[in-house]
Amino acid sequence: MTDRFLRACRREPVDATPVWFMRQAGRALPEYRTIRERATLPEITSDPALCAEVTLQPVRRLGVDAAILFADITTPLPGIGVELEIVDGVGPVIERPIRTPEDVARLRAFDAEAAVGPLLEAIRLVRREAPVPLIGFAGAPFTLASYLVEGRSSRDAQRLKTLLHADPATFHRLVAALVDMTVAYLRAQVAAGAQAVQLFDSWVGTLSPFDYGRSVAPHMRRLFTELADLDVPAIHFGTDSAGLLRAMADAGGDVIGLDWRIGLADGWAIVPDRSVQGNLDPSLLLGPFDAVADQARWILDQAAGRPGHVFNLGHGVLPGTDPDDLRRLVDLVHGAGARPTAFADPSLLTSATSRSAR
Amino acid sequence: MTDRFLRACRREPVDATPVWFMRQAGRALPEYRTIRERATLPEITSDPALCAEVTLQPVRRLGVDAAILFADITTPLPGIGVELEIVDGVGPVIERPIRTPEDVARLRAFDAEAAVGPLLEAIRLVRREAPVPLIGFAGAPFTLASYLVEGRSSRDAQRLKTLLHADPATFHRLVAALVDMTVAYLRAQVAAGAQAVQLFDSWVGTLSPFDYGRSVAPHMRRLFTELADLDVPAIHFGTDSAGLLRAMADAGGDVIGLDWRIGLADGWAIVPDRSVQGNLDPSLLLGPFDAVADQARWILDQAAGRPGHVFNLGHGVLPGTDPDDLRRLVDLVHGAGARPTAFADPSLLTSATSRSAR
Repeated sequence: MTDRFLRACRREPVDATPVWFMRQAGRALPEYRTIRERATLPEITSDPALCAEVTLQPVRRLGVDAAILFADITTPLPGIGVELEIVDGVGPVIERPIRTPEDVARLRAFDAEAAVGPLLEAIRLVRREAPVPLIGFAGAPFTLASYLVEGRSSRDAQRLKTLLHADPATFHRLVAALVDMTVAYLRAQVAAGAQAVQLFDSWVGTLSPFDYGRSVAPHMRRLFTELADLDVPAIHFGTDSAGLLRAMADAGGDVIGLDWRIGLADGWAIVPDRSVQGNLDPSLLLGPFDAVADQARWILDQAAGRPGHVFNLGHGVLPGTDPDDLRRLVDLVHGAGARPTAFADPSLLTSATSRSAR
Repeated sequence: MTDRFLRACRREPVDATPVWFMRQAGRALPEYRTIRERATLPEITSDPALCAEVTLQPVRRLGVDAAILFADITTPLPGIGVELEIVDGVGPVIERPIRTPEDVARLRAFDAEAAVGPLLEAIRLVRREAPVPLIGFAGAPFTLASYLVEGRSSRDAQRLKTLLHADPATFHRLVAALVDMTVAYLRAQVAAGAQAVQLFDSWVGTLSPFDYGRSVAPHMRRLFTELADLDVPAIHFGTDSAGLLRAMADAGGDVIGLDWRIGLADGWAIVPDRSVQGNLDPSLLLGPFDAVADQARWILDQAAGRPGHVFNLGHGVLPGTDPDDLRRLVDLVHGAGARPTAFADPSLLTSATSRSAR
């Protein structure tokens, strides 16, 4: 088994830059779509063999250095008493959103084995077969709260942000309950065999640094603290987070995920005490491979010579991505480790700009 | 006339921090909605008296330190031969999007007097009455190109970004034509009396720093260069731009607009050679005023003692905002200049985080 992914998470030297892709399982793969023709997403995550199969598909086809458990960020929510439906083209829809103190009081404690037993069994199956480490994952509590309060995916998290200011007690009780759930969920994943965990904070980028620092970071800090004794690397990823990176790193995470809106060197300069993961614009993969290769090399050049880089996209694989291009990208990233590369100036906010403007 | 807005743009000392709000004209004001009951947006922008009235409404009601010309970023587009319709709840819709070399070749040269004569007349009317400086404005070429290529507002600018990589020649010809239009449009606004200009790059935040630096920044640099002899301050604002600020400032702009996703001190540390404008989360104004006041003071504290801050929201005023709250916010910002404030540590990436986490 190659352990370059885990080594990079710990900022140890590697033989080649490790690479995996957010949403590598599903979406782009024809063998996944074949399965989806006969099974819904909840059917897959409640069938250990099917879930393990979907988790392993990208490892086989793409040659990535890590597997990530196939699940939706809303998968654990029924385990605290939230009923939801995943609607094609819309995403998760919660018929009775959580908006009042009474709604929050109704949430149940999370029992991982009862709530997501098949998913934990899938982890055990994957571990038997996977030639690479398995990453467990969960949505971050703010992002989960956004789904619960809005009732569905919301681009601006407006209702949740208004709750934060209009009724902070309810906001904090809700997020604290979701921290409890997420700690139990991830601890169970690690107990079943996950060798790293990633927290996805998809909607954190809607917050000002003031609101994040004062109202969300303390919850995230508790979450990471309650996972610390597990001794597995934690990846902390937020979308649209260029202005929040330091506060997010201070809250926790061995590896800070960067989206594509900030240069890797600029982002790493903000969190020099961590590993970084990222950060190719996933939309490039809908165009010619030349542009993918150019920007992948630009990213690798910024990281070259410095232990602690996990190559990834800056967000999930988009539908319509050609899996052959993903495979070529994996090969490019692995090959780059062997060739001599220019060492990029990692000084803050100059390297990316001057490099890209030349 | 108070000139504190223009003084702050030039980084000169002011008696109180100047403040205005993006989209202050329209949306939140009942007197605007009364006008909209009898006139469409294109009817307003083609009627000098009505357009001047709408531009002046927020100055009267809110006490802001600048007026901004009321227009849509798509207003000049018919002047280059692009037919569009503004659909309520959708925004501008272009029936025949611009996607091929032939589409781009069909675009006409922009004649400001013929294309937007009434708007220029509105500028002259506003200047006769306004007690504060008037800001002209235009959409930035990348954002305009997004509308032209996608056919409507697009959250991810996916089609435009794919055009950039799949057919760069067409992309560059299109953006260059939009630079030509925008230069002529803004020069005409200044000739008519606009005392500053703002470039809105609403969709620039969809780009990686690589793509921005290599493919968009050179166009923006030409645009600012061709306005330089006008000797009016230029404000350069992009949404979701925390990772692009240095590259945007290098392209041009006396004042760099910050959205709310980055701390003001952190953003200013990236562009210390410019004035900055911003950056309160506009969604706060949908909640209790206490939260607005807290974060406004947090922003003012970060800027205190340093010339060159124009207070604004981090994005446009949202529908549903109470104009009385906007007025209270203006008073708070003006009052803050007189009271002693703690001088915030402006060092990069520490002040915002530690302040907000306390």
